[in-house]
Amino acid sequence: MNNSMQHNQIIEELTSIWQQLQQTQPLVHCITNTVASNFVANVLLAIGASPAMIDNPLEAENFARIAAALSINTGTPNTEQTQAMFKAAQGATLAQTPWILDPVGYGTILKWRSETVDQLLTYSPRIIRGNASEIAALAGYQTTGKGVDTTLSPENVLQHAATLIQQNNQCIAISGTTDFILSQRYGVIAIQGGSSLQPKVTAMGCALGAVCAAYHAVTDDSTLAAIAAHAQFAYAAQQAEQTSTALGRFQITFLDALSQFRPEYFTEVQFNQH
Amino acid sequence: MNNSMQHNQIIEELTSIWQQLQQTQPLVHCITNTVASNFVANVLLAIGASPAMIDNPLEAENFARIAAALSINTGTPNTEQTQAMFKAAQGATLAQTPWILDPVGYGTILKWRSETVDQLLTYSPRIIRGNASEIAALAGYQTTGKGVDTTLSPENVLQHAATLIQQNNQCIAISGTTDFILSQRYGVIAIQGGSSLQPKVTAMGCALGAVCAAYHAVTDDSTLAAIAAHAQFAYAAQQAEQTSTALGRFQITFLDALSQFRPEYFTEVQFNQH
Amino acid sequence: MNNSMQHNQIIEELTSIWQQLQQTQPLVHCITNTVASNFVANVLLAIGASPAMIDNPLEAENFARIAAALSINTGTPNTEQTQAMFKAAQGATLAQTPWILDPVGYGTILKWRSETVDQLLTYSPRIIRGNASEIAALAGYQTTGKGVDTTLSPENVLQHAATLIQQNNQCIAISGTTDFILSQRYGVIAIQGGSSLQPKVTAMGCALGAVCAAYHAVTDDSTLAAIAAHAQFAYAAQQAEQTSTALGRFQITFLDALSQFRPEYFTEVQFNQH
Repeated sequence: MNNSMQHNQIIEELTSIWQQLQQTQPLVHCITNTVASNFVANVLLAIGASPAMIDNPLEAENFARIAAALSINTGTPNTEQTQAMFKAAQGATLAQTPWILDPVGYGTILKWRSETVDQLLTYSPRIIRGNASEIAALAGYQTTGKGVDTTLSPENVLQHAATLIQQNNQCIAISGTTDFILSQRYGVIAIQGGSSLQPKVTAMGCALGAVCAAYHAVTDDSTLAAIAAHAQFAYAAQQAEQTSTALGRFQITFLDALSQFRPEYFTEVQFNQH
Repeated sequence: MNNSMQHNQIIEELTSIWQQLQQTQPLVHCITNTVASNFVANVLLAIGASPAMIDNPLEAENFARIAAALSINTGTPNTEQTQAMFKAAQGATLAQTPWILDPVGYGTILKWRSETVDQLLTYSPRIIRGNASEIAALAGYQTTGKGVDTTLSPENVLQHAATLIQQNNQCIAISGTTDFILSQRYGVIAIQGGSSLQPKVTAMGCALGAVCAAYHAVTDDSTLAAIAAHAQFAYAAQQAEQTSTALGRFQITFLDALSQFRPEYFTEVQFNQH
Repeated sequence: MNNSMQHNQIIEELTSIWQQLQQTQPLVHCITNTVASNFVANVLLAIGASPAMIDNPLEAENFARIAAALSINTGTPNTEQTQAMFKAAQGATLAQTPWILDPVGYGTILKWRSETVDQLLTYSPRIIRGNASEIAALAGYQTTGKGVDTTLSPENVLQHAATLIQQNNQCIAISGTTDFILSQRYGVIAIQGGSSLQPKVTAMGCALGAVCAAYHAVTDDSTLAAIAAHAQFAYAAQQAEQTSTALGRFQITFLDALSQFRPEYFTEVQFNQH
């Protein structure tokens, strides 16, 4: 924020939703990939939420109706899980459960999941979280992404991404060296910090998506939820990197830092409004 | 045990089955959820068993016939895995392979898996292991459980749970701050210890179910198997908590403590017969 | 190598492909089991590669065409994933993507996956990596393997394995206390080192297969790729064991050592040509 009062206000609101998350331990319904599921569940527990991985079509709709928030990630879809995604998105829409979408692999050669994502978008996720390539592709930009890696800088896709925001309470979050969070309400917020080691631990982005959902369970403000999630991740990754740059210990220390997070650490994360 | 001779006798039997587990490294057939599978396998290896995750219907029955024990967990069922559960339960029954059931989510809004569990119960698992909500629901008690969390205290469900025990060698294990193990042979055994951090690491309960199966591979006494598993977990969790309350290190130290377990540590776990 | 010049030459080539792997961060397409997927992805990231777990039949063929290498592991197959294996092997063949096969459970009571493996072999994997039982069974030796454990010593199966090598650039890798790498070009290469704790951490072998694929992405020489992968694993496991024999920390330190590997460490691994 360039306005220090606004910044203080944001910190106050982040502190407030962090406390509410601890008190309510919201039930976060996750449909995620097989690579990420264990890490995502442990990350959600570490920040104080209650994860539930319900990814079959016979249960997903009902569960999304009673969950406090829903996170859908298209990392390793199969036929049944994809049906569950649609059911869950439908249940979330009917019950007004806030839900976030992490369109892993969108815009690459992986056409099936891109079509799945296109259909999921019709259920209006409150937050779309991805890397620059995925968000650029969603905005119609032709990417050359071979796989699931980031090949575009977040800065390149900011103007494209803005076109994706259709509702006032919707939000786009782009992960990278600097994270960018876009919304009509706050414009572009840039979050510094984090660690260059984050892309070297699998499922970091997937877990971040689920944490956005966890925070959205305790606030109606999608942007605030996304800021809280990204700021807590940036802080924890910075802490972890200071302890170890070796990847095994980095991952463990990251979980430690998430679980030992205190709301006053939000002030240590640098974020600026553009 | 209020009777010290009995207590000594139990410790002796626990020591004996622990040694047998180290010597035979029993092959434990697991059908478990995608969140837990890596952790469950590592826990089984840490205690000295040989895990094998065989969860497709074309292989599950044959494998359950040759395995030393079987553990079925309904955490993230899909159509094929559910068919594998039935096949495996059938194979285990035919070959008299001891098998345990961990009815994750039973009695919640997750109706499909509850029906699956009801069908699996007809194959007479030797141990049913769950949290208080799940066991209460199995005993016909109306729960308000929204998800997979525990909302009932184990004490509340003890009388209900007793009705579930139909055979002399059957056993119900209820996890919580105090674990309760119920059987006709021993009545109610309460195991103290463990750590309040256990519910903050995903798949802890799922792994405990698989460890019950591993111990059941080396004894016919279901209750003894359940006591050994719960006691070793309680000890390891206590050790881990003394090293670190940060969740990343807690999880790693828990695995360390399981792998460094010695049978004399059974004496350090407090258990009482009610 | 008994010939020191040859040994020096191998070290030079290993150094060269290690450097190329760091520079190109090759995209490794993995179809692996649910137990291993998280660990495999983290191991690939730790050695400098880019993992992508694409295991559905609607995407696997196209992805195998653009990936730098493909790794197929039959640990927990289901119908859809098995179809993806065939599609991916086909795509790899058409695009000449080097691919490796890890036939988990071959030759055991698990007939369905053995048949799957037989079919996959028709697509000519460049490297087949397994334990002694699996490789022996592939060579037509009758095994008594009950499950997925090794019951044969690698030495026993060397002569059998040699019959499997059909092409000059093909390679068989057998994991054990000593690893053996067989090819027409180099004959039998024995790699010492590693740690007796490796079989006590799940998915170690699965990750090794994927690392073979990663190295194969930067060299046409299958044997060199397999040597690099096995040597780096042997070194990292040795380092990890020196830090801790407790299984939680061993696993984390192993990842640390992989991520801190330097090409000069190849000289510390003992390998001999037979």
